[in-house]
Amino acid sequence: MKADPRRHIAANYPWSLELQTRFADMDVNRHLNNVAITRFFEEARIRFNWGLFTGDAREARPRYLVAHVAVDYLGEGSYPEPLLLGYAIGNIGRSSFRCQKGMFQSGRCIALCDTVLVHRGPDGPAPLPDALRARLEAFPLSG
Amino acid sequence: MKADPRRHIAANYPWSLELQTRFADMDVNRHLNNVAITRFFEEARIRFNWGLFTGDAREARPRYLVAHVAVDYLGEGSYPEPLLLGYAIGNIGRSSFRCQKGMFQSGRCIALCDTVLVHRGPDGPAPLPDALRARLEAFPLSG
Amino acid sequence: MKADPRRHIAANYPWSLELQTRFADMDVNRHLNNVAITRFFEEARIRFNWGLFTGDAREARPRYLVAHVAVDYLGEGSYPEPLLLGYAIGNIGRSSFRCQKGMFQSGRCIALCDTVLVHRGPDGPAPLPDALRARLEAFPLSG
Amino acid sequence: MKADPRRHIAANYPWSLELQTRFADMDVNRHLNNVAITRFFEEARIRFNWGLFTGDAREARPRYLVAHVAVDYLGEGSYPEPLLLGYAIGNIGRSSFRCQKGMFQSGRCIALCDTVLVHRGPDGPAPLPDALRARLEAFPLSG
Repeated sequence: MKADPRRHIAANYPWSLELQTRFADMDVNRHLNNVAITRFFEEARIRFNWGLFTGDAREARPRYLVAHVAVDYLGEGSYPEPLLLGYAIGNIGRSSFRCQKGMFQSGRCIALCDTVLVHRGPDGPAPLPDALRARLEAFPLSG
Repeated sequence: MKADPRRHIAANYPWSLELQTRFADMDVNRHLNNVAITRFFEEARIRFNWGLFTGDAREARPRYLVAHVAVDYLGEGSYPEPLLLGYAIGNIGRSSFRCQKGMFQSGRCIALCDTVLVHRGPDGPAPLPDALRARLEAFPLSG
Repeated sequence: MKADPRRHIAANYPWSLELQTRFADMDVNRHLNNVAITRFFEEARIRFNWGLFTGDAREARPRYLVAHVAVDYLGEGSYPEPLLLGYAIGNIGRSSFRCQKGMFQSGRCIALCDTVLVHRGPDGPAPLPDALRARLEAFPLSG
Repeated sequence: MKADPRRHIAANYPWSLELQTRFADMDVNRHLNNVAITRFFEEARIRFNWGLFTGDAREARPRYLVAHVAVDYLGEGSYPEPLLLGYAIGNIGRSSFRCQKGMFQSGRCIALCDTVLVHRGPDGPAPLPDALRARLEAFPLSG
């Protein structure tokens, strides 16, 4: 992730979200804890996915299994400044796709995250529905 | 990680730890939350590292930066059953090394985790001290 | 709570539970965080309640609303030592009852907690079933 | 707390704060977890206290021990709607004072919290400094 220079620039992510930090996100080292950082990435993922299908389309909201998460930690985060989370959709496969996330604080990129989500049907992994695929394709990383 | 069959067998890890699950580790899906699972891996890492230098050697306990974390989620975890965490040391570099972790519940491997830790000196990343390197080399994955 | 000397002695609680502490339970002050302490009390409450109705009786497990929680903080808690949680049932009313909890670490009482639980029926608060009442009456504080 | 009708009205609190909810604040019951609710009250307390002494006065920021926390749970909270936290200072004693908090979501009061904070000097509880007392007196509950 960190080898891709596009990932370090907030404006390259087609969707973004500001998240508050909390005192409890710090650990004894007085910085944002590594696991708390994955918590922010989770929050961005869930809000993005909910936002894909709203109103009447809400019933069509798909369910996912998280198959893989990888995080590069690039700098320390602090409290109480908010975070800016950038979100893009990377490679889209038959039944899974990759989310590309960046975390920024006070203009600095402090972490990158890739997540592989598998579409879950009633009997396990299932092909991505066309409506979902079309929506995901609208969010590529730019730059 | 998951492609390495040795990683799926608890007995292959040279150090292990039983951890209690908590009600709060579940999310609305009634399983152990993905981020909670990274929390357990953090706990194993810290207890392993603290255990390397105890008693009088405690002052020599090194400080690390977590540079990278990757998790493969292989199965659902449940509450209130405890978890068994397996821990091994993989590739050891000049100033960093890789931790290889496995999570087991009721005999099933439910997640694998690799973490890259960078030794932190007073001015940033620093070569691993010989005493630390020798201790780490005593914990290879078997199988 | 803290004015009652019986509450400060672990052996006076008719049910108890040992809980592991986690690195993440500490805050920047390097002690067990106050909210983390209420998390441990929650865990004790849930495990006690689940234990009341096991096996075939599991289906009869009642549902509660937490109406009130009060905590007296008496001393600092530390990591990685485990905690001993003591549990008793106090006043039992028509549709609610009071749980009396104590938290001990290395022999010291570090916190006390009282919780009021309301039995929840299909249409809101409901009288405690006789089977539940009988089981609760078996757990008075002693001393 | 809940018997005081002033506490149920957000506008009666002289200081307030909007806080985001997170997916992780929910538990298996799909509502904001009781302990997560105390986490929000903690966050309000810390941000209020930090705000009392800013800029050059930051060095004078006092340290507290949390001696007592009590919460009345009045209604369910949900995700992803934000919360409004109201904050007031109640009785001010010689070395401690009481914080009065209310939590509101979508116009409903869902929880109330009282906290007793003890001013901590170098050797334990210490009289409140005059500068602190004066600032605290500026935040009474109204109504």
